[in-house]
Amino acid sequence: MNEIEKLTELFTQFPGIGPRQARRFVFFLLRKENGYSTMLIKSINDALQKVRQCSDCLRYTTMQHSNTRCRICSDTQRTQEQLMLVEKDTDIDQMEKSGAYTGMYIVLGGNLSLTGKKGFIREKELFTYLKNHKNTFNEIILALSATPDGEYTADYLITKFKETEGVKESKITVLGRGLSTGSELEYADSTTLVQAMKNRK
Amino acid sequence: MNEIEKLTELFTQFPGIGPRQARRFVFFLLRKENGYSTMLIKSINDALQKVRQCSDCLRYTTMQHSNTRCRICSDTQRTQEQLMLVEKDTDIDQMEKSGAYTGMYIVLGGNLSLTGKKGFIREKELFTYLKNHKNTFNEIILALSATPDGEYTADYLITKFKETEGVKESKITVLGRGLSTGSELEYADSTTLVQAMKNRK
Amino acid sequence: MNEIEKLTELFTQFPGIGPRQARRFVFFLLRKENGYSTMLIKSINDALQKVRQCSDCLRYTTMQHSNTRCRICSDTQRTQEQLMLVEKDTDIDQMEKSGAYTGMYIVLGGNLSLTGKKGFIREKELFTYLKNHKNTFNEIILALSATPDGEYTADYLITKFKETEGVKESKITVLGRGLSTGSELEYADSTTLVQAMKNRK
Amino acid sequence: MNEIEKLTELFTQFPGIGPRQARRFVFFLLRKENGYSTMLIKSINDALQKVRQCSDCLRYTTMQHSNTRCRICSDTQRTQEQLMLVEKDTDIDQMEKSGAYTGMYIVLGGNLSLTGKKGFIREKELFTYLKNHKNTFNEIILALSATPDGEYTADYLITKFKETEGVKESKITVLGRGLSTGSELEYADSTTLVQAMKNRK
Repeated sequence: MNEIEKLTELFTQFPGIGPRQARRFVFFLLRKENGYSTMLIKSINDALQKVRQCSDCLRYTTMQHSNTRCRICSDTQRTQEQLMLVEKDTDIDQMEKSGAYTGMYIVLGGNLSLTGKKGFIREKELFTYLKNHKNTFNEIILALSATPDGEYTADYLITKFKETEGVKESKITVLGRGLSTGSELEYADSTTLVQAMKNRK
Repeated sequence: MNEIEKLTELFTQFPGIGPRQARRFVFFLLRKENGYSTMLIKSINDALQKVRQCSDCLRYTTMQHSNTRCRICSDTQRTQEQLMLVEKDTDIDQMEKSGAYTGMYIVLGGNLSLTGKKGFIREKELFTYLKNHKNTFNEIILALSATPDGEYTADYLITKFKETEGVKESKITVLGRGLSTGSELEYADSTTLVQAMKNRK
Repeated sequence: MNEIEKLTELFTQFPGIGPRQARRFVFFLLRKENGYSTMLIKSINDALQKVRQCSDCLRYTTMQHSNTRCRICSDTQRTQEQLMLVEKDTDIDQMEKSGAYTGMYIVLGGNLSLTGKKGFIREKELFTYLKNHKNTFNEIILALSATPDGEYTADYLITKFKETEGVKESKITVLGRGLSTGSELEYADSTTLVQAMKNRK
Repeated sequence: MNEIEKLTELFTQFPGIGPRQARRFVFFLLRKENGYSTMLIKSINDALQKVRQCSDCLRYTTMQHSNTRCRICSDTQRTQEQLMLVEKDTDIDQMEKSGAYTGMYIVLGGNLSLTGKKGFIREKELFTYLKNHKNTFNEIILALSATPDGEYTADYLITKFKETEGVKESKITVLGRGLSTGSELEYADSTTLVQAMKNRK
């Protein structure tokens, strides 16, 4: 395998990238002025060095100095009594952008799967965190996808929470369901309509 | 223009049908056993004769005998004090299927358009209906699309309602917003997230 | 099943039409001014009455008077010594539009299928026609799709032709392969490139 | 801009990559075991160092030792009397895979554009090469896309070639047109059909 094939092969591991696009990436780098690749390599190195996983919320983010907790988790101005469980690092960005929430987060890293195939959540880390924060949270918000897997994960965790000392006392909530931006009634399913009616105002 | 071209031309007026598919429809009819086309013609004739526009909710539906009001509008078991405004006939079917609503309906026939281009609602018929049903409704529910045009139409109608005697006394509501079935946080916009937080439970 | 449901059901049998679009067709007809549906019904009736299957080429087309052969098959100005086999009625239109061919046609009505599932060609009619036109054609052109099924059908027919008296004397040809309009080399397969090289000029 | 944003920004310059997928690339790298990123960086560096542009055909490829000409251009077993002009590096791979050609290549690096916007070919390098190879080629094959831009580029070059000493004596050919693999007659345009008829066999 020559250098072009090797690099193509590595790019095919990028999420959503097939062999043809991977090959295009390689020729893009070869044709680009040299400065770009140097910057790209520096930027990958920087990211790998400066971006670490927060010991609390488990997201990957830029950490200042020798901190082990991220900017959000160490922000004492935020509501310490609310915890939100999200699937992905980017979900935190979306939620922060909306301004709708000012509490703590934990990134589950995925969903359990109904079919059992590729499901994964950071269950051990979550319950260690909850053990270390016994009776800390008034409310735990499950901000998971409105999909079968997301709902299955929520159900699984709610059952577990109700059996866990120092957690079962918290109010457990899930995000409200209804018409999301762009929805038309014609394409809405019954669950969405029932919730949209309940939450009408 | 021969018979094939004429029929192709008529089928291109069907919603979402281009010339190639229209042509395929024609050859489909020509190749099908004769009984099918006879049934199709009879069925179109039946629909045109037995399906009429309900004088109240304005939807097109099968009308019994000489009724001018549809099965829903003439059902005295339904809640007479709630009125729901929807865009399309099929929205009523979706809402009925969900079982979330048992009141009256009006089909607006579309949306006003922000760009002003093709916007249309049955405004005159709506306000005639409301005049004839002064002080009848406790609640008027705007069940419009969660799109810019849907929201523009809702805003327009709410303003009008507040200036209309016998209507402005009603509670005006809109369907709840939130995560609709299938939504993932990563793709949700801020409005949806803010509403999903407010409606969490 | 009411009239709307019945008509919806019939429209779902149209090629490529699902229940939702079928339903939209029904409401389109109901909402359209009455003249349209009347014209549509008349046009379907006209097509069914005036369009007949040509006894020679087997395509469906407008037939004049009591003719059993279509305008093309009865055109004595056309080359009577060439026969082209196509899959679909519309293939004749495409070929005529190109002006590349002035001989006779036969519509096979489909392809044989490699998987054997839904394959179908009008084999019996084809060989009856060829028997009635013994030693008529200098050339028989197989103008089938450049797909596995099209090639399989071509191979099947060529073998049969070589065993058939009055046919095996004809030159049997297939359409040239190469880059079709819009093709880029990057997406071309080896067969196409080999043929494009052979046919370069 | 933090490290995640910087790297995201760089990935958005990759061909066909929007901000969301670029962000996903970053988190993919952060979450991947460290060895992968190290390999990726090494592989990019290797490619940049070992892959050079061939001084003859102008493609980017692995070069042995201090060679300035690639494996194909320095292969004396290949036909030295044929030159093929292609648009992209990958076009050479496709052509080699087909086994249909054993001569020399030049990569134009793109197409001229009919609209004049972003069109680009390595015209200067091409004519320098042709000057250095006066009267070398029996045949020059224009293996460009069967698109308006590809045809415009071919026409432009053919005109130029006819005015160039030592080139105008060569036979100038273009790849054959016809049905490419997967083509159905119904979707073929007239040009394709005319060529497919001419090239039938």
